[in-house]
Amino acid sequence: MSILARVATPQDLKKLSIEELTELCAEVREFIIHHVSQTGGHLASSLGAVELTLALHYVFSTPEDKILWDVGHQAYAHKIITGRKELFPRLRQMGGLSPFINPAESVYDPFVSGHAGNAISAASGICEAFEITGNPAHVIAVIGDGSLSNGLTFEGLNFAGVRKQNLIVVLNDNEMFISSRVGALADYLSRLMTSRTMRGFKEGIKSTLHNMPLVGESIYRLSKHIETNLKGVVVSGSNLFEEMGFRYIGPIDGHNTAHLVEGFQNISRMQGPIFMHVITEKGHGYIPAEMDPEHFHGVGTFHKINGEAKTANKRPTYADVFGQTMIEMAQADERIVAVTAAMASGTGLKPFAKAFPARFFDVGIAEGHAVTMAAGMAKYGLKPVVAIYSTFLQRAYDEIIHDVALQNAPVVFAIDRAGLVGPDGSTHHGLFDIAYLRSIPNMTVLIPRDQHMLRCMLNQAFSIGGPVAIRYPRDSVVEEPLPCHGFSVGRAQVLKDGTRAVVFCAGPGCYRILEACRDIEGVAVVDLCSAKPLDRDTITELVRAASGRFVVVEDGTAQGGVGSAVLEVLSGLDMPLHFRLLGLPDRFIEHGGSEPLRAQLGLDTQGIMASIRDIL
Amino acid sequence: MSILARVATPQDLKKLSIEELTELCAEVREFIIHHVSQTGGHLASSLGAVELTLALHYVFSTPEDKILWDVGHQAYAHKIITGRKELFPRLRQMGGLSPFINPAESVYDPFVSGHAGNAISAASGICEAFEITGNPAHVIAVIGDGSLSNGLTFEGLNFAGVRKQNLIVVLNDNEMFISSRVGALADYLSRLMTSRTMRGFKEGIKSTLHNMPLVGESIYRLSKHIETNLKGVVVSGSNLFEEMGFRYIGPIDGHNTAHLVEGFQNISRMQGPIFMHVITEKGHGYIPAEMDPEHFHGVGTFHKINGEAKTANKRPTYADVFGQTMIEMAQADERIVAVTAAMASGTGLKPFAKAFPARFFDVGIAEGHAVTMAAGMAKYGLKPVVAIYSTFLQRAYDEIIHDVALQNAPVVFAIDRAGLVGPDGSTHHGLFDIAYLRSIPNMTVLIPRDQHMLRCMLNQAFSIGGPVAIRYPRDSVVEEPLPCHGFSVGRAQVLKDGTRAVVFCAGPGCYRILEACRDIEGVAVVDLCSAKPLDRDTITELVRAASGRFVVVEDGTAQGGVGSAVLEVLSGLDMPLHFRLLGLPDRFIEHGGSEPLRAQLGLDTQGIMASIRDIL
Repeated sequence: MSILARVATPQDLKKLSIEELTELCAEVREFIIHHVSQTGGHLASSLGAVELTLALHYVFSTPEDKILWDVGHQAYAHKIITGRKELFPRLRQMGGLSPFINPAESVYDPFVSGHAGNAISAASGICEAFEITGNPAHVIAVIGDGSLSNGLTFEGLNFAGVRKQNLIVVLNDNEMFISSRVGALADYLSRLMTSRTMRGFKEGIKSTLHNMPLVGESIYRLSKHIETNLKGVVVSGSNLFEEMGFRYIGPIDGHNTAHLVEGFQNISRMQGPIFMHVITEKGHGYIPAEMDPEHFHGVGTFHKINGEAKTANKRPTYADVFGQTMIEMAQADERIVAVTAAMASGTGLKPFAKAFPARFFDVGIAEGHAVTMAAGMAKYGLKPVVAIYSTFLQRAYDEIIHDVALQNAPVVFAIDRAGLVGPDGSTHHGLFDIAYLRSIPNMTVLIPRDQHMLRCMLNQAFSIGGPVAIRYPRDSVVEEPLPCHGFSVGRAQVLKDGTRAVVFCAGPGCYRILEACRDIEGVAVVDLCSAKPLDRDTITELVRAASGRFVVVEDGTAQGGVGSAVLEVLSGLDMPLHFRLLGLPDRFIEHGGSEPLRAQLGLDTQGIMASIRDIL
Repeated sequence: MSILARVATPQDLKKLSIEELTELCAEVREFIIHHVSQTGGHLASSLGAVELTLALHYVFSTPEDKILWDVGHQAYAHKIITGRKELFPRLRQMGGLSPFINPAESVYDPFVSGHAGNAISAASGICEAFEITGNPAHVIAVIGDGSLSNGLTFEGLNFAGVRKQNLIVVLNDNEMFISSRVGALADYLSRLMTSRTMRGFKEGIKSTLHNMPLVGESIYRLSKHIETNLKGVVVSGSNLFEEMGFRYIGPIDGHNTAHLVEGFQNISRMQGPIFMHVITEKGHGYIPAEMDPEHFHGVGTFHKINGEAKTANKRPTYADVFGQTMIEMAQADERIVAVTAAMASGTGLKPFAKAFPARFFDVGIAEGHAVTMAAGMAKYGLKPVVAIYSTFLQRAYDEIIHDVALQNAPVVFAIDRAGLVGPDGSTHHGLFDIAYLRSIPNMTVLIPRDQHMLRCMLNQAFSIGGPVAIRYPRDSVVEEPLPCHGFSVGRAQVLKDGTRAVVFCAGPGCYRILEACRDIEGVAVVDLCSAKPLDRDTITELVRAASGRFVVVEDGTAQGGVGSAVLEVLSGLDMPLHFRLLGLPDRFIEHGGSEPLRAQLGLDTQGIMASIRDIL
């Protein structure tokens, strides 16, 4: 019987010897590879964090102690040993296990996690709450090195460093984040690992001992231990994290269970903010993932034996079309530059980065900086295209208003993963972008219905002369797109005539609606093409012709979305209205396939047909 | 004839000797004090930055070289010597000079500035644009020490530190920001000024010389100069900013024009990112402002001779009522805590901070951290109230969605300065909060119509059991509030009956609408009390009774605001509708008195009456 079979919760871990714990790590790793090969998921980060995860649960007393995972995608081992092993085969499936950390799913998930950078701030709040309420439990934030480029992480560190609460920050440093790490702090980590490694090692130990009088005995053992056992380690008495008020411990080998356990045991007895630096390898223990950790960051199903994808996606995605169009635009105009925030691969910009390295800017997980920097570029001679997923662009909302729109800077936003994204779930659906962008003055919000239109909109975007957002889904392109007869900003396109009712739509959903309306006579289908500006004349005329009967279908929240924009346009129309707004409802949407989710929400072909029949 | 009389633009500065430049600083300071005493404005920061500003313009060649002011309120001297001297008497008035940096106003204002923290990112974008387009001009970002607590500033530093462009960051360190500075970096600055000051001074010089081979001669002169002239200065060869990739120069006395000029001349010849640390005094040169810089951060009109306010505001503001209510709530419930982001004074929380220091959290200019920390507090036993102005809360939009609303954490947001704010203008109006908050699931958005209702809503907020936003204006409270008969979430209150038409409103604007409707017979006035949830039954019933004739008036953008929410509710009503949505139009609104602005926008009593007559 395997050890894993005997481990249901972290309490079961405590009975194991260090040797058994190490053995369990291998079993958990095998378990993850086996299941993710069948379900797809975030593999490489989770493989890198197996020992770290088990050592944390071995030493600390969860769920009383709180472990906050800054990046939810490193947490599969955590899920497996916190009572969710049996659910793991249904990872990311509708009704199955959440893809990321989810407090609604388990008492071992103390705080939501899906957008990198929130863990230290959240942990800091929990520490303050524990201080005031007299709760002695430990609070641990596990962050990735990528999060060190993030402003929220910095704000958290800057605050926690002076508060002196017992906050433990564990840096899971796999020396790369989603693509490659960026920024001065990343350079700093590398220097910590190299030039400083050997020099002043003894002094480092001495100074650390000197700085930690409260835990003299245990830290002494830790130091001895490190000294005897680890190659190339430094416990430095003075570095950047110490300047910020943390006690810095590390670097520690993140795949050595014994060292991790001893390290955690020691810091569990320390007071004040601790910064523990753990070195891991992304994809550790699975050769295909070690060789190409970026590919295995998030994967579909694959053959376990060699890592090859099972279902090669033949049709390109919108991201592919975007990436290719960017190259063409850049070839034609040397002022075109691309900006992204640790999403080079996901947004389709890798080929652009290769073709135009000097015109490609990956700023790390720093969406706010990406947007404000792009505003600076746009005002002084460049044509920046900022490619960020819909949900992550929320991090730059104020920068879009204040730094871009207020000065009408011609920045183009390529917003990928807009609308339902499927298995990544509630933190990753892109449901709010239309609502939050359309209320910003000077903003144009375009919604291509297919790959032809995406190309067309991108090529025209800089001629608009102000900020332009183009939002498209995380999907393969349309198989048989309609012929594209160009596109004019603010002009809707009538895809099907009719006067009994009108269906207004936008994006690839237009094809679903054409399908839904095929057998309902007299219903017009209109592609709005943009959420802002709207084609007031066409909308008013068609609504009038249809005696006020219309439906608006959108792939985003119905609260303040395209539907409400259409209603605003009808101000002063002065006629009876029979309308339905079909968009995402006023709640967070779980994970699951986009099609089953749509069916559940009444947004599939059947649901749309029913709504149209309703108003007829 | 004064020197100032001869200086119209920075070109005129170049003809002056250092002695004349120093004399001019005194004249500019006098000019600022004189005029701000008559107009009100941001006095203390601007007084602190006079020498810094003139020295920058003396050395660099604006407008070709770009000076970005991170905090617009330090820029009065900049305005005065860049061709806007004659306009200065109309500062902050409608049609007069902008309160902050405004590219639409002057070619010397290269980038918008109003929300602290954007300068380094914007400057970094301009540097990249100059690199690609071959423009050799200098790019200088002047930041306040408060901005060092801000995540966007950090993201900019982290990026610029590795890019190695010729970005000059000038830290205008007045050792406090709006109230008092917060965080590990602030502590670090203090340590730079004290413990490190003398120790290793010679080594610092030597190491600096060693690190700057390209400018050996000039830096040597600078070092000699500093060594001979300044007390307590250190040019350190290794500190936190250097760890982040910047060459650190300073600290330099920010009120010594000669030192500043020589310092800027030297760094103008250096390559790569520079971090120059300048020490200034907020309010410098005007004793009342030196004594109470926080009061003189932003002031109304005052008597120049003693600094006393001319028009004491007798009625309390909503901020006062909020602050007082918070104290009462905290006395009754020890779990109540207050969180703000460098707005302790402006939000009315100073008395709370004094009464409950251990339950008051000012995180610095770190809105994202404030919100995520509060979510951690709310989930683990506290009742956090986060007080942030509407426009600054935009910085935490994603944190509200992801960290608060997604887990339905009971955080209460006290959103001050919602709606039109008057003379602070386009960067400070709070026009978007209703639109961006109401599309977030689980969120409740309350709009008190007066001080009684604000108290009532605050006292009930934690009983709602999820995130609650309460938004109110930067105004004095209502003089004769209606009697308050309590308040139920999601229930509108009919203030006046009528069946010819309905006016829906919310907030103190209700009183303006009652006034507007006094002489129009048969018009109902309904206080919606909240933007979310809406009282579907009452709205539907009243619209039906009024045969579909209604107006919605709001103090926020009409794009996706309360009006469009009311329209969404009418889905399925199936009757002729005659409606008008009266909110802020789809453009940024300039500065000016709130009343004149409202008149201009058709949102005053007259405008509202006209719209009602229109639908009747």
